[in-house]
Amino acid sequence: MLNPEHICLIGTGKLSRHLAKKLRLYKGKPIYIWGRNSDKAAQIAGEFELIHLEDLMQIPMNCVAIFCVSDHAIETLANKLKGIADFMVHLSGTQTIHVLTKYTLNAAVMWPVQSFSFQSHMEWKRIPLVLEVSNTDSKEWLMELVSALGGMPVFLDEESRKKLHLAAVVSNNFLNHLMVLTETWCIENKLDFQLLRPLISQSIANLNDQSPTELQTGPASRNDQTIVQAHLDMLQAHAQLKEVYSLMSSQISENNRI
Amino acid sequence: MLNPEHICLIGTGKLSRHLAKKLRLYKGKPIYIWGRNSDKAAQIAGEFELIHLEDLMQIPMNCVAIFCVSDHAIETLANKLKGIADFMVHLSGTQTIHVLTKYTLNAAVMWPVQSFSFQSHMEWKRIPLVLEVSNTDSKEWLMELVSALGGMPVFLDEESRKKLHLAAVVSNNFLNHLMVLTETWCIENKLDFQLLRPLISQSIANLNDQSPTELQTGPASRNDQTIVQAHLDMLQAHAQLKEVYSLMSSQISENNRI
Repeated sequence: MLNPEHICLIGTGKLSRHLAKKLRLYKGKPIYIWGRNSDKAAQIAGEFELIHLEDLMQIPMNCVAIFCVSDHAIETLANKLKGIADFMVHLSGTQTIHVLTKYTLNAAVMWPVQSFSFQSHMEWKRIPLVLEVSNTDSKEWLMELVSALGGMPVFLDEESRKKLHLAAVVSNNFLNHLMVLTETWCIENKLDFQLLRPLISQSIANLNDQSPTELQTGPASRNDQTIVQAHLDMLQAHAQLKEVYSLMSSQISENNRI
Repeated sequence: MLNPEHICLIGTGKLSRHLAKKLRLYKGKPIYIWGRNSDKAAQIAGEFELIHLEDLMQIPMNCVAIFCVSDHAIETLANKLKGIADFMVHLSGTQTIHVLTKYTLNAAVMWPVQSFSFQSHMEWKRIPLVLEVSNTDSKEWLMELVSALGGMPVFLDEESRKKLHLAAVVSNNFLNHLMVLTETWCIENKLDFQLLRPLISQSIANLNDQSPTELQTGPASRNDQTIVQAHLDMLQAHAQLKEVYSLMSSQISENNRI
């Protein structure tokens, strides 16, 4: 009867570091870490009192292997741990569970819907963990892990997870790209980007009790073509921002005419 | 010697209501409100104990007239108050101060860089107030008003204010449009938009200590064309989101190659 009692983190990226920091111990035992970049693995192990594995094959028996690696690296590493790790978990929003089930019966996906940076503190209890499992044993073991992390479990099938991942790209990466364009514009025009912070925070806070559709304001939503055109004229030398401005304004105006 | 002792709010929109709520009294005296929509003006007056003017011409002497109206309505109303209001202030990010100085020597612009909704409470002390004045008397009177509101004064000339307004449109209205697209996608795919809230909040919180350029992640920034293409395929029936996805991904990839 299997019953994974150790955790081994595979990989040394931001997410691995956040898991190491949050877990430290699992079922009273120190957790393990292995990484292709051995120095980085040793550094995380040192910082959070983990056991550093120089060689992946030193992984203990009765182990949950958590793949905190790039999507394309998961399958190769899962293959190496075939017959060794009791239970394999990957953390990808886009990869199928089958990159693991090819090599083990007991597999799960646990995708945290969050943007992990090196600096910030993670409030795990607020983070949705999107889950998928290969069988009932995996479900039981995964829920132990979820409970150790304190995240918010949400079971979704692969198709829905991929769709939610797309939404996450839009609302995280594209939102951040708008901030890149805005910051660049501010720097080029000697304006303090920080002046916009209360506005940005309030725009997000307003989403707590209202739908973004109800919240839309501004020149494009009023179809104020004089201001839209004046802005496009100001953007002559700012190709990226001009393209985004033009596309978004026309979509906002279009939605407001409906 | 002029010395405006009364405030009259002209207009009954969101901003007028927030000013009424915050000010209530000015120099110990109740403030006045007039609006083209007389019922709405009476309602705001009732709610915050203001004096409702049925007729704009009843405006008291020694008055600051604050125009909380659409950009295109400011000049007509300023003309009506020529020789009557001591001091005129408009709140627009885009209008020149000269729509007021045509009708009075004492004029100012006070543009709050904030998105006002009907529901939310405004923390005035965090809101940048972008200021411009026509003369030194106006500056003195304006600072009294700023101090009554408790906002953060920032003097900018007209050109810089207009450039900051453009940046505000991008980081408020366009950010909100991304949220509209994301929410629509979620609804159409039976996904809970609320699952993305911690991600969105964290993306914004990360901007406190890092530049958005350093924070960019995701498939486009890694130039992972497999995922980008898979997402575009999923968006066949979602024209607006597909256009935005395609443009933003190519810009993010482009920036990352530099």
